[in-house]
Amino acid sequence: MNIVLLSGGSGKRLWPLSNDIRSKQFIKIFKTKNGYESMVQRVYRQIKMVDADATVTIATSKTQVSAIHNQLGEDVGISVEPCRRDTFPAIALAIAYLHDVQGIGLDESVVVCPVDPYVEDDYFEALKALGEQAAKGEANLVLMGIEPTYPSEKYGYIIPATVDQTSMVDTFKEKPNKETAKSYISQGALWNGGVFAYKLKYMLDKAHELIDFTDYSDLFAKYDTLTKISFAYAVVEKEPKIQVMRFAGKWKDLGTWNTLTEAMSEPVLGDAILNEACDNVNVVNELNVPIVCMGLHDVVVSASPEGILVSDKEQSSYIKPYVDKIDQQIMFAEKSWGSFRVLDVEDSSLTIKVMLNPGHRMNYHSHQRRDEIWNVISGEGVVTVDGMEQPVQPGDVITMQAGCRHMVTAVTELKMIEVQLGKEISVDDKQKYELEN
Amino acid sequence: MNIVLLSGGSGKRLWPLSNDIRSKQFIKIFKTKNGYESMVQRVYRQIKMVDADATVTIATSKTQVSAIHNQLGEDVGISVEPCRRDTFPAIALAIAYLHDVQGIGLDESVVVCPVDPYVEDDYFEALKALGEQAAKGEANLVLMGIEPTYPSEKYGYIIPATVDQTSMVDTFKEKPNKETAKSYISQGALWNGGVFAYKLKYMLDKAHELIDFTDYSDLFAKYDTLTKISFAYAVVEKEPKIQVMRFAGKWKDLGTWNTLTEAMSEPVLGDAILNEACDNVNVVNELNVPIVCMGLHDVVVSASPEGILVSDKEQSSYIKPYVDKIDQQIMFAEKSWGSFRVLDVEDSSLTIKVMLNPGHRMNYHSHQRRDEIWNVISGEGVVTVDGMEQPVQPGDVITMQAGCRHMVTAVTELKMIEVQLGKEISVDDKQKYELEN
Repeated sequence: MNIVLLSGGSGKRLWPLSNDIRSKQFIKIFKTKNGYESMVQRVYRQIKMVDADATVTIATSKTQVSAIHNQLGEDVGISVEPCRRDTFPAIALAIAYLHDVQGIGLDESVVVCPVDPYVEDDYFEALKALGEQAAKGEANLVLMGIEPTYPSEKYGYIIPATVDQTSMVDTFKEKPNKETAKSYISQGALWNGGVFAYKLKYMLDKAHELIDFTDYSDLFAKYDTLTKISFAYAVVEKEPKIQVMRFAGKWKDLGTWNTLTEAMSEPVLGDAILNEACDNVNVVNELNVPIVCMGLHDVVVSASPEGILVSDKEQSSYIKPYVDKIDQQIMFAEKSWGSFRVLDVEDSSLTIKVMLNPGHRMNYHSHQRRDEIWNVISGEGVVTVDGMEQPVQPGDVITMQAGCRHMVTAVTELKMIEVQLGKEISVDDKQKYELEN
Repeated sequence: MNIVLLSGGSGKRLWPLSNDIRSKQFIKIFKTKNGYESMVQRVYRQIKMVDADATVTIATSKTQVSAIHNQLGEDVGISVEPCRRDTFPAIALAIAYLHDVQGIGLDESVVVCPVDPYVEDDYFEALKALGEQAAKGEANLVLMGIEPTYPSEKYGYIIPATVDQTSMVDTFKEKPNKETAKSYISQGALWNGGVFAYKLKYMLDKAHELIDFTDYSDLFAKYDTLTKISFAYAVVEKEPKIQVMRFAGKWKDLGTWNTLTEAMSEPVLGDAILNEACDNVNVVNELNVPIVCMGLHDVVVSASPEGILVSDKEQSSYIKPYVDKIDQQIMFAEKSWGSFRVLDVEDSSLTIKVMLNPGHRMNYHSHQRRDEIWNVISGEGVVTVDGMEQPVQPGDVITMQAGCRHMVTAVTELKMIEVQLGKEISVDDKQKYELEN
């Protein structure tokens, strides 16, 4: 199975766990035997369980690359959109990547699927069936139609021509109101879960039809000049040969705190105490201090380095405009080499904790407008400052003036307290360099 | 007026703002024209407004001395209990302090009052009247009787002999249940607010009667050998000549989050956003990240470096057993020289932010089992390390090996990131020294 996972934009609907640089699919919230995994880790694991040889490519933006490598390792394919250009260009880029970089043949089928459905293994069996159906060539596109469990206003609907397991599509319907949804369902409509399969050749032809490019690198290079256009508008609405396959298994879209907490196997994640008078309360605490809840009903509490949410569960779907107002610097980020967390913010200083994974290093870089001090607190590493290498261990202090080139490589897991000093401290004040040899 | 303010023990009933070393009376929660003030600051300011010449002595434990000086300055008298020995020894020590240290005459009257009533200026006028009444010598003790506003089960009751403004006391009653409280009130009972006045000589004689000591320093020296005994049991219950003076003004005991939030002039203190669906919600946020509340009713939310409380207001009076279970190191403390806050905790390191007020210095000290690194982030100061002085400014780094004697004096407000490194980091690992000259 060739599968493209669409890893969508950042968003604040699960604030304070998601924010401008940390998307909900990377939040480690699902309990497993070996700790907690994120949506993207769960989906990736499930795919590999159903089909160990599956080629998985994640179509995403530059900002997510570090988090993906950090959570899934280096083996996963990533088709990086240089900028946001809606779903058709993203799918065109991914298909060119599959063909030119991964070497997938023109006759093979590809399944495209969102990265964040909360589903069981049968869903991935259904994806496989979708790919096999697309390979038959009866239709140019094969969609998944999810059997509705209630008249939702959140999803588009697909009305199939017949009641068979696989059927041609009669019509597509936009997100309806509740009454209309009921009437769709009485006509046998299915939810459109945003999953579709096609032969690689079909989509590559579509891409060349609508975009003037030679190959993947050419498309990548001119990506920012492309017109924004959705896959639905560019392809689906104009395609007469579309099939739909029914799926009746468990399927949940964990887009809000209300739906997310329903998927938690235990009410509390992190350090929290709930008294007996609490009812239907979920806590997700990423801080290292306790949360105490007393006498709450139908409430979700979440704390992260970014902030604290306390919300009635129903009301939690309305947080976006409130958290959009918050203008705060990023307090925690996963990087390809590890992670950092802001500990203290002052007018002319910023103190962060830097954690590097064993064997990893940050970019060789300098800053124009700030000095930096590294205090090594645990682990072993090698620091490079203006071309000079030096091993470091706990207790070592490295001071770096503005302009000085520096980086550190972790030998074992390495932790440092980094004190930044300067008048206008900004993440944009960073020049990267190739390493001198 | 000579006034002794009893600054009672630490407690966790206002956790996470109060804890083992930070008592509720030091929480800055009351809005004034110039920012926020604490209970002790509010009471001290109110006393000085009613009587600018009042001698104010705070009877308290060692752990509160730094916070008192930090909030009230150096002028306030402090009678320090070397350890906890219940109210009678504490009052005996304070009276010896007033006589031997402050030089208050034997015939002068003294008013003793808790440090944390939430009251208006008329209350302090009433204290003055209480002192004047005691000076007359009609009775040995003069108590304040607060006119009850409801049949409370939280207070003791005083039944006066007559309905006059000043009357002899007929009987004292323990905290009753609601029904009994109603019947007391129908008999004209008053709340016992723990306020009483006496002549210095009376109480000093009582002290000598029950405790074998010569003067203040002798009593201080043998304080830990004294028997625990309450003032009520040792003095009040045995004293036939007790008067009570009525007080009908505003009086509140802010002992729980429920009562404390009633005294807040605005629902939010600190960084917080409440949506319109919130009703009767109070937020006290001491962290520098936002709290977002959605659709909550009758809830108090409080966040500090120690933790986060989210509680139904009624339920908030039951938090003690839950927070008592929390075994966590102190994350924030006020000191006589400023304050510190824990930023990061690891197995073999602790990172704190140290803030020193201008002109202040910490004790000259060393540690046996940890090295320390100071990263100066703002202000100017003078560091002393093993007797050597050195001026410091932002960007300076001072490293101190275990055993090395050190301290810093702030010239301007000084802020440092202190990294502690060692296997068993503990606040008890501290040796203090006199400064060499």
